[in-house]
Amino acid sequence: MIKAGVIGASGYVGQELIRLLKQHPEVEITAVTSKSNVNQHYDDIYCNYKGIFTNSFEEQDMDRIAEISDVIFLALPHGVASKLINEELLKKTKVIDMGADFRLKDIGIYEEWYNTPHYSPELIGKSIYGLCELKKDEIKKYSLIANPGCYTTCSILSLAPVIDHEAFDASSIIVDAKSGITGAGRSLDMGTHYTECNESIKAYKIASHRHTPEIEEQLSSLAGKEIRLLFTPHLTPMNRGILATCYIRMEKEIAESEIREMYMDFYKDSPFVRIMKEGVFPETKWVKGSNYCDIGIKVDKRTNTLIAIGAIDNLIKGAAGQGIQNMNIIFGLDEKTGLGDIPIFPA
Amino acid sequence: MIKAGVIGASGYVGQELIRLLKQHPEVEITAVTSKSNVNQHYDDIYCNYKGIFTNSFEEQDMDRIAEISDVIFLALPHGVASKLINEELLKKTKVIDMGADFRLKDIGIYEEWYNTPHYSPELIGKSIYGLCELKKDEIKKYSLIANPGCYTTCSILSLAPVIDHEAFDASSIIVDAKSGITGAGRSLDMGTHYTECNESIKAYKIASHRHTPEIEEQLSSLAGKEIRLLFTPHLTPMNRGILATCYIRMEKEIAESEIREMYMDFYKDSPFVRIMKEGVFPETKWVKGSNYCDIGIKVDKRTNTLIAIGAIDNLIKGAAGQGIQNMNIIFGLDEKTGLGDIPIFPA
Amino acid sequence: MIKAGVIGASGYVGQELIRLLKQHPEVEITAVTSKSNVNQHYDDIYCNYKGIFTNSFEEQDMDRIAEISDVIFLALPHGVASKLINEELLKKTKVIDMGADFRLKDIGIYEEWYNTPHYSPELIGKSIYGLCELKKDEIKKYSLIANPGCYTTCSILSLAPVIDHEAFDASSIIVDAKSGITGAGRSLDMGTHYTECNESIKAYKIASHRHTPEIEEQLSSLAGKEIRLLFTPHLTPMNRGILATCYIRMEKEIAESEIREMYMDFYKDSPFVRIMKEGVFPETKWVKGSNYCDIGIKVDKRTNTLIAIGAIDNLIKGAAGQGIQNMNIIFGLDEKTGLGDIPIFPA
Amino acid sequence: MIKAGVIGASGYVGQELIRLLKQHPEVEITAVTSKSNVNQHYDDIYCNYKGIFTNSFEEQDMDRIAEISDVIFLALPHGVASKLINEELLKKTKVIDMGADFRLKDIGIYEEWYNTPHYSPELIGKSIYGLCELKKDEIKKYSLIANPGCYTTCSILSLAPVIDHEAFDASSIIVDAKSGITGAGRSLDMGTHYTECNESIKAYKIASHRHTPEIEEQLSSLAGKEIRLLFTPHLTPMNRGILATCYIRMEKEIAESEIREMYMDFYKDSPFVRIMKEGVFPETKWVKGSNYCDIGIKVDKRTNTLIAIGAIDNLIKGAAGQGIQNMNIIFGLDEKTGLGDIPIFPA
Repeated sequence: MIKAGVIGASGYVGQELIRLLKQHPEVEITAVTSKSNVNQHYDDIYCNYKGIFTNSFEEQDMDRIAEISDVIFLALPHGVASKLINEELLKKTKVIDMGADFRLKDIGIYEEWYNTPHYSPELIGKSIYGLCELKKDEIKKYSLIANPGCYTTCSILSLAPVIDHEAFDASSIIVDAKSGITGAGRSLDMGTHYTECNESIKAYKIASHRHTPEIEEQLSSLAGKEIRLLFTPHLTPMNRGILATCYIRMEKEIAESEIREMYMDFYKDSPFVRIMKEGVFPETKWVKGSNYCDIGIKVDKRTNTLIAIGAIDNLIKGAAGQGIQNMNIIFGLDEKTGLGDIPIFPA
Repeated sequence: MIKAGVIGASGYVGQELIRLLKQHPEVEITAVTSKSNVNQHYDDIYCNYKGIFTNSFEEQDMDRIAEISDVIFLALPHGVASKLINEELLKKTKVIDMGADFRLKDIGIYEEWYNTPHYSPELIGKSIYGLCELKKDEIKKYSLIANPGCYTTCSILSLAPVIDHEAFDASSIIVDAKSGITGAGRSLDMGTHYTECNESIKAYKIASHRHTPEIEEQLSSLAGKEIRLLFTPHLTPMNRGILATCYIRMEKEIAESEIREMYMDFYKDSPFVRIMKEGVFPETKWVKGSNYCDIGIKVDKRTNTLIAIGAIDNLIKGAAGQGIQNMNIIFGLDEKTGLGDIPIFPA
Repeated sequence: MIKAGVIGASGYVGQELIRLLKQHPEVEITAVTSKSNVNQHYDDIYCNYKGIFTNSFEEQDMDRIAEISDVIFLALPHGVASKLINEELLKKTKVIDMGADFRLKDIGIYEEWYNTPHYSPELIGKSIYGLCELKKDEIKKYSLIANPGCYTTCSILSLAPVIDHEAFDASSIIVDAKSGITGAGRSLDMGTHYTECNESIKAYKIASHRHTPEIEEQLSSLAGKEIRLLFTPHLTPMNRGILATCYIRMEKEIAESEIREMYMDFYKDSPFVRIMKEGVFPETKWVKGSNYCDIGIKVDKRTNTLIAIGAIDNLIKGAAGQGIQNMNIIFGLDEKTGLGDIPIFPA
Repeated sequence: MIKAGVIGASGYVGQELIRLLKQHPEVEITAVTSKSNVNQHYDDIYCNYKGIFTNSFEEQDMDRIAEISDVIFLALPHGVASKLINEELLKKTKVIDMGADFRLKDIGIYEEWYNTPHYSPELIGKSIYGLCELKKDEIKKYSLIANPGCYTTCSILSLAPVIDHEAFDASSIIVDAKSGITGAGRSLDMGTHYTECNESIKAYKIASHRHTPEIEEQLSSLAGKEIRLLFTPHLTPMNRGILATCYIRMEKEIAESEIREMYMDFYKDSPFVRIMKEGVFPETKWVKGSNYCDIGIKVDKRTNTLIAIGAIDNLIKGAAGQGIQNMNIIFGLDEKTGLGDIPIFPA
């Protein structure tokens, strides 16, 4: 049994981690922490766990938790994880960081977009970006995994198969993404007060969302050249789900069927990526409650543009599920272990 | 492995059965039928199953399916199941009927409320009302299970522990229930067109809903006397969930804590019923995606009334989940097998 | 032109008052206040007003505002209005209090349910409960109007026509009410965070909601005897609307058609009450955006119970609209002035 | 008083026309028709009109209705209006066609995208595209107005001010639009069944939506050159509202403030267009229930792209409201008459 601790278990990502860990056949939960809920029972905060997971939140004693855990998940705001971990800790336990602190390899870009110094720059080179479909073989060599962002997972997976192909103009990418409101977390805010976001849609953090450089860095790495793109997130009145509508111009004509083959081939060893048939496109409802990423493509011949659309459950493939997938990989399990849930519909 | 067939697998209840059966560790699906989808692939109708369950719908050949199945689930409109099954068929296979045809033991009441003759009255006496928490020991003796309705499951479980207690006036019961819109099924109807039911709530089938006599028959049986009650269903703008707010007048004073003890005791062997602590009340979100029924109680001393509130996921404990629970019981499995999902939140 | 000021104009009720006042043909807005928004432009807080109402919030200088206003609307938490007004102020201006401070005539009941002393008990006797359909003739004589609560308006209107009739058992009343989430106001709270209340329904403040004594006091007054009833509010995942499902036992048989006549007759001079035809019941969508209260009735002969169902827009007939209606009455205008909006659908 | 008839008054656009016409101070409704509802009372179909508009649907006798009407609104499927009207009819009455038949001036494009012959090609030249902000002066000269589509109105208004400017690459336009579900109308369809579209978002008619050539034709006309663009509509789980996120590459650097000036200037005589301040962007909630089109802009210097975002209420500025605005213009009224509703929030 893998012994797992969760630091920051009272937010939505932490809570989803608990659900997946608790249902995982090879995991035992060692500790849950939350600064504001110490000594409270987990199922008093989240009544869905009543009679299922009744442990108390404990103090965030990293050393102690590292002693008793094979892996620690950090579900914390950016700037906190990088203060919390160090090489000593990583000798005792693996760390899967659900936050942003180790996602960007370029520390300058991190400090520019997050507007804060990085507190453990020496660890950046010792961490891996845990987008499982792209880095499966490398991930298993690392003790510190930077679990990707939700928008980024969906956007990168939707574009990766063509990004290094000469027919596509990598400088033309626009990603117009739509997220459910769990993406904004559980902290109270006027923007996520029910009656302020229900029955309305808006774009936000236009041309300034922090997932932009993360998508760019990974796609640049895949393409072998520097890519700049435009990313626009939208807040959509629903609980879960991300839909990323990605546009990339084509400089040569390629048949849609040929591009679909490229996608099928690229993801042939990726059990969680499903490429839609011709004329079928993802809807967030078809992946809700699962670790799948569905991708559909369409070539618009009138404008020579590939439209690649991806859909994920932001709390699963976009966060906790991918965290579990990373854990499975680093511990040598089948990456699907504990992630077999069929999408639940209508939910 | 239990071999299971699903007749009427294209509706929401059928679909939820497929999800739970497919994830069940002791089940193999033998056949799925749907009159209007013969030869279509399951995952072309329900894309959540893409790459997971790709079988084709087949003709509804009951004899053949009975030959290859240990159990058949019927997810059909009322009046259809009673035509479809007979004693011959029940010798070959168990049948769990998700519909209404065998729920009422009084054929006169059935014919009055459903406004149709009953097509196999001889089987009524050979069937059992499959409300697992009340009939666990009897269920295992039967080959034909009448799986309870969604509203009825929630209402009966909320009232059962006190219904035969002298302090409660069984003639005073009012059940005011609220259901999500999956309860209305997948057939197109103006009442369930998105823009007709979104952002609105209404009562419907007031004083005339067919779950009324079903609740009455079961509560009467528990109380040992005839009970008439008032049941009002409401359509609530959400996908899943039933909340039943039940009112029963008290003729003697009993402390709320004492009543809570009665509930705890009544359900001490029922792993899917959770009795809330004092001051905590069910919300449908806390049971969504699970087979739980949460119950909270409150005594209003000002009016001497017990308010018992139950919450279920109408497609799980109110339909498919309870069907699986019945299957587990009749095949001698632990009743929780395949039903261990933690409620998914926020979903 | 009536000169009107709004104290507490930054909440949802205040905002709806501004909308209705601004569109009212006989009103000019003199001042808007909000403690936390002084000097901010109204349309920076509420962008719907961009280019329409751009005034700044000012300090809450009651004397000054009274000088320049014919009427002042108070949209404040309970316990605040009673500190703010006095007889001097009421000599200068009319006051329509949207809050609870002057709704209950029995000060003991007020202090018990609101758990606070009353700060201007001498004014209670000089105020009138502004449920327009019941008190039209008296309202015009008063300078201080206690605008009724949202649940109370809907509940009282649904039961008033039969409450003093001998055939009905006034001791048996249960009101099971469902409200949209604007009813909880604009203050941030975990219970109204989008992802905590979306796709779920719950009862709250069970047997303890403060609108209970308000309904009781008014119905008692109509019935000419003391009435105690049970009131259960539910939080429903939608922005606006209240549906009150009211149950009252009948001790004699009366035909539904005869009861409907009683309702039609009772409200024959009430342009905002619409009595539904036989077999038709209110839905909150049909009154949204309007000052209507729709009422449908059904007699359940099986249990000798009258089910009376009322629907209102909680922010209009349940708050701001009724406030305007009260203003129209005290200034001698047609009560419909500025309240002619047809319900907006689908909205 | 303008006498107005509505052909096809039972759909959502027809119903919204009735609401606005009924509230219009200068209009009297002469006739309402609906093939499937003849002789039914309007308020039996739409209960919001109870006691307000109780006329019966009548036969669709165009000649008779033309005799008694100054203007006829057609709210019909494409291909129907073009059969229904002719020059004779246009001599008797003005016609405002809410459908697609006269929007495209290039008949070949119409027949290609709508896959049907045009039934009155001789009238195309005698009609005007009724996007009021662009064609106010011409509209008043015409008897046949092609009321623009919902997506098109929002998209064109968002891009018009810069489309002919040399700094912008008109060949680079991508419009990623999100619509509420009233946009799909009232006809029953699996895609708009509540539980199929609630809590999910999807793109549809990708690179093939019929509003594409309509946007192109109008923008081409403004730009003075042929424009091809990519348009992707998305179905969003909410009743009303369209948000169009428009991308256009810049070939020269222009300050955002300068572009904002261009927008302010372009719409200086357009009372229904509101240009947001720097850093503020439209949300559909702020225009709901009104005829406004809110537009916000942002220059992304990293990719030299202008992001222009427009928001409208699809049933008002995107349909019925613009129809009324057109009517006001052709009858010489202030274009705001009857369209003064402040956006209703939270609704």
